[in-house]
Amino acid sequence: MHDSVNNIFDHIRVVLCQTSHPGNIGSAARAMKTMGFKHLYLVKPDIFPDAHAAALATGAADLLESAIVTETLSEALTGCAFAIGLSARKRNLSHQLFNVREAALEVKKIASHQPVAFVFGTEMSGLSNAELDCCQMLAMIPANPEYSSLNLAAAVQVVCYELRMAILEGKLDFEAPTELATNEAVEGFYRHLEDTLLTIGYLNPSAPKKLMERIRRIYARARLEKEEVNLLRGILTLSVTPKKHTKY
Amino acid sequence: MHDSVNNIFDHIRVVLCQTSHPGNIGSAARAMKTMGFKHLYLVKPDIFPDAHAAALATGAADLLESAIVTETLSEALTGCAFAIGLSARKRNLSHQLFNVREAALEVKKIASHQPVAFVFGTEMSGLSNAELDCCQMLAMIPANPEYSSLNLAAAVQVVCYELRMAILEGKLDFEAPTELATNEAVEGFYRHLEDTLLTIGYLNPSAPKKLMERIRRIYARARLEKEEVNLLRGILTLSVTPKKHTKY
Repeated sequence: MHDSVNNIFDHIRVVLCQTSHPGNIGSAARAMKTMGFKHLYLVKPDIFPDAHAAALATGAADLLESAIVTETLSEALTGCAFAIGLSARKRNLSHQLFNVREAALEVKKIASHQPVAFVFGTEMSGLSNAELDCCQMLAMIPANPEYSSLNLAAAVQVVCYELRMAILEGKLDFEAPTELATNEAVEGFYRHLEDTLLTIGYLNPSAPKKLMERIRRIYARARLEKEEVNLLRGILTLSVTPKKHTKY
Repeated sequence: MHDSVNNIFDHIRVVLCQTSHPGNIGSAARAMKTMGFKHLYLVKPDIFPDAHAAALATGAADLLESAIVTETLSEALTGCAFAIGLSARKRNLSHQLFNVREAALEVKKIASHQPVAFVFGTEMSGLSNAELDCCQMLAMIPANPEYSSLNLAAAVQVVCYELRMAILEGKLDFEAPTELATNEAVEGFYRHLEDTLLTIGYLNPSAPKKLMERIRRIYARARLEKEEVNLLRGILTLSVTPKKHTKY
């Protein structure tokens, strides 16, 4: 990843306020790390550190070790230029309400040069009004209005996923898939196929083009790979002059 | 929601293959329901039904009760026109690889008229090659390549969230927030403010405009609500003629 992108990840912190269940802290750490985030702040957790938190963090134990525990949300926001509170319900407040996708785009812009926090409330009642007053924006996961109760770590997962998608613009961290066949290779296959279809009497020799167009469209959609062209031509060769007595 | 949208939700099933931990089945059911989905299929679960599954499902116990348990993935896909397998890693296969956002858009199109399945593998090793062969598309959550191990229910949460975002186009299920102030109300406030700033000697009476422009920009960004204009004008009134001996 580019330094500038690393910088954005490094500028984002997740703040969990007064979490009741230490297992949720562990699961939240795991969720953060799978999306490339590492700065976890815990405001007055009921129980921390804890073996259950460590068990559920699995490979994200390093985030628990470096987690910063504070007495107040304000302390956890030290140095932050912007804080977004996650809310599970509509609140009668003057905060602008965004969905987390919109919020993630906003965070990305600010976090390229200044620290930003995503703040989560308690499992039972979410953020208090006093905590929301420390935030500049309110974000929601558009959940099922008949059952909107996401588990805390599930909410952290969705938010961190949206942040990662916004920062990396949805790119998968992989090289291109297997090599596509060149135009010449595919054209060679089409000629081979046309010859074969004429040989076996499938095409009308006086007007072979029409059917070939339809067949070409099928393979065009499939975007043939180099190896697949070889495979298909192997089939064509054998369909005209079958090998006998081979195991294959 | 519209009938056509309900129809799409109703056409989507989540298939969990050979899940080891019943708790993950419960958490996955909860994740599904928070995003408005209800059709859960379990292919050869290690343990089901189970009290731990029920405990973690919380308000989504109905999904566990109506879950369909099958012996094979093929049975779980009965009636489906399209199946997407979730993969945590790149596979050397000819499947097209999409991120889950792209896959969700594809699912939305097909599920408007035919059933579609999202298929998840085991916690330890994901989908087998034989299971992938039952799928028409492979989707990935773009995770941290250094630690891509999402919990099964967390992966279900992200996928169902993306499906919901695609189907509802990111809309929050809420009416518009509190009423914004009209242009006249805001202009009335600016006049009131300018008068007040002149009265208290903050503005230069021969050139008040420049500073007012900067102030207007601040409130423009804030997008004042109707009630807030009243509040601010109340402050202005008192700043010139303070009320004495009131508690407020």
